[in-house]
Amino acid sequence: MTGGTPAARFTADDYRARMARAVRSAADAGLAGLLVAPGPDLVWLTGYAPSADTERLTLLVLAPGRRPVLVVPALEAPDAEKAAGAPALTLRDWTDGQDPYAATAALLDGSGRLGVSDNTWALHLLGLQRALPGTSYAALTEALPLLRAVKDPAELELMAAAGAAADAAFEEIRTVRFAGRRESDVAADLDALLRRFGHSRVDFTIVASGPNGANPHHEAGDRVIRVGDMIVLDFGGLKDGYGSDTSRTVHVGAPTEEERRVHDLVREAQEAGFRAVRPGAACQDVDRAARAVIDGGGYGPYFIHRTGHGIGVTTHEPPYMIEGEEQPLLPGMCFSVEPGVYLPGRFGVRIEDIVTVTEDGGRRLNDTTREMVVVE
Amino acid sequence: MTGGTPAARFTADDYRARMARAVRSAADAGLAGLLVAPGPDLVWLTGYAPSADTERLTLLVLAPGRRPVLVVPALEAPDAEKAAGAPALTLRDWTDGQDPYAATAALLDGSGRLGVSDNTWALHLLGLQRALPGTSYAALTEALPLLRAVKDPAELELMAAAGAAADAAFEEIRTVRFAGRRESDVAADLDALLRRFGHSRVDFTIVASGPNGANPHHEAGDRVIRVGDMIVLDFGGLKDGYGSDTSRTVHVGAPTEEERRVHDLVREAQEAGFRAVRPGAACQDVDRAARAVIDGGGYGPYFIHRTGHGIGVTTHEPPYMIEGEEQPLLPGMCFSVEPGVYLPGRFGVRIEDIVTVTEDGGRRLNDTTREMVVVE
Repeated sequence: MTGGTPAARFTADDYRARMARAVRSAADAGLAGLLVAPGPDLVWLTGYAPSADTERLTLLVLAPGRRPVLVVPALEAPDAEKAAGAPALTLRDWTDGQDPYAATAALLDGSGRLGVSDNTWALHLLGLQRALPGTSYAALTEALPLLRAVKDPAELELMAAAGAAADAAFEEIRTVRFAGRRESDVAADLDALLRRFGHSRVDFTIVASGPNGANPHHEAGDRVIRVGDMIVLDFGGLKDGYGSDTSRTVHVGAPTEEERRVHDLVREAQEAGFRAVRPGAACQDVDRAARAVIDGGGYGPYFIHRTGHGIGVTTHEPPYMIEGEEQPLLPGMCFSVEPGVYLPGRFGVRIEDIVTVTEDGGRRLNDTTREMVVVE
Repeated sequence: MTGGTPAARFTADDYRARMARAVRSAADAGLAGLLVAPGPDLVWLTGYAPSADTERLTLLVLAPGRRPVLVVPALEAPDAEKAAGAPALTLRDWTDGQDPYAATAALLDGSGRLGVSDNTWALHLLGLQRALPGTSYAALTEALPLLRAVKDPAELELMAAAGAAADAAFEEIRTVRFAGRRESDVAADLDALLRRFGHSRVDFTIVASGPNGANPHHEAGDRVIRVGDMIVLDFGGLKDGYGSDTSRTVHVGAPTEEERRVHDLVREAQEAGFRAVRPGAACQDVDRAARAVIDGGGYGPYFIHRTGHGIGVTTHEPPYMIEGEEQPLLPGMCFSVEPGVYLPGRFGVRIEDIVTVTEDGGRRLNDTTREMVVVE
């Protein structure tokens, strides 16, 4: 998979502006150019998402003072020509048997440091390193972590719509039967609901019941849900090319006192994380605010992941809300705030909203109740 | 997507043997070790397919004289432990904030040439290059192109079953209505049929009608199929972890004399390619045999791709049947033989079977009729 369907509303001019901004950012960062393989960066810069990412090189080459060039296998050129951003770039096709790395090298000066999209295949990076021995490389996310981080108003509208669709899915799923069904059955319901509410791609539908909830990356399995289970629901995907990701923890029947206490603690932590969101605060401040609440409640050792991750044309991207990340928050950034507590062999709780930074604070793009919902 | 579901029939011993074979092959090729990220190589070596391939490093580290180690994010360790190959390796987990590249470096000598799986993210390769400045890297497919190429009897059985399932899908699709429906409708039928016949993943369902058939990588679009159209059907995916890929070109109603002539030519070319398959022949001999027929018929300039590609736990892998590839064929190799002719603006024809090399020739894993099928 190489990214989602780009939203139809963006035009060649939008993509031209994004590519120009990327080149300026690259120059500011001391980079001689950017090399972008199929994936979310290419979708964002050009609207082009080839059907597969393969051993055949497809690469957008951006360099200051040069027109953008998309190196593309000849077989795929007709599809690339249809991309919304195609009028803003030159296609340079190559056929089986030609050396696409040499063709790429001819588009660059052959020296300096180049940014390369994170998910570019090693096969291709090694080919470029061979063809351009005078160059060095930096991962795009490390060199320009904020390239896609600040969303413009049209993007924010799409992010809000994706969040609203995920919320609509939650409002439906809380009414279905849980007890006696497999996690995977509820996950299938969530998948169908996300699609019904407009998602073109579902990235994850976590249904982690009882002890499975203590594994933050448990997806959904054969376990039959029982009365008395806590259940972490965490689901999202892409709607019109932009991501959703929300978590709520529900309970089948009445919770125990401890379950309620842990849920309250996570809810307070999530609230604290949200309240830490404002322009100029550091990413790590969001993590610290949420973590302080859980530490204070005595469950610190059971909060075993960072507090959040950016989201946009992917469901997982910079910036990261993690200790040590001093990046200041900027208006238009979108990321998750999702503290959790995981008690091995027993249960887990996670509560997650996507939040966007506004001029004076944060705005939640998910807003279903954060109180514990009791399901049947 | 990080590869298909590994077939349940393989055990820890199978994976142990594969890893041992990989280490021996690496040593023979002068490599100090192999680094394998999520994807088909990891599935084949360990049976482990994480649900997503992300910025968090997961990496199998294989080096002569050392026990295999899987570096894995702590969050994903519980899933990794469940992989069929897990008993044959040591898990080394890392948590957010730790440096997984340094952890990987500690597992290696810090010098020599390392093989790295083709689809390893550039982000990770750059991290490894930083952490191991004394090492150099080769893409796994370039260093050990044949690592997964020779299938053992259990694998061949799965390949044959995947081929038979694709053939069953063709036998059904040839009976459906084509005229008046969109390409994408027929593609949806093909998708459903492949799944009905046991595929867990569908990689492509090309329905290229009329002039769309002249683009070898056209998938399926909104074009409404008409009487008189040639239609290239090319479809496949994974069944029990092994790939299918077959093409047939059908015609809606009676073909013209030229359409029949081109179809006959491609059929003869496919037959010639198949007959060139035998142990010791070079990959390029298969390409040459098929191409000679099309050249002889005067359509050489319209056969614009290589004749075939390997297939196994992916639907697209070495060896490639292409001019210049002198690799001798070995019993157990599996690859496509798929010549085609593409007449811009008019129509295309492609006929494709998966073929496996036997002790004395080749065996087709697809065997529906290669005569032109007339559909309604």
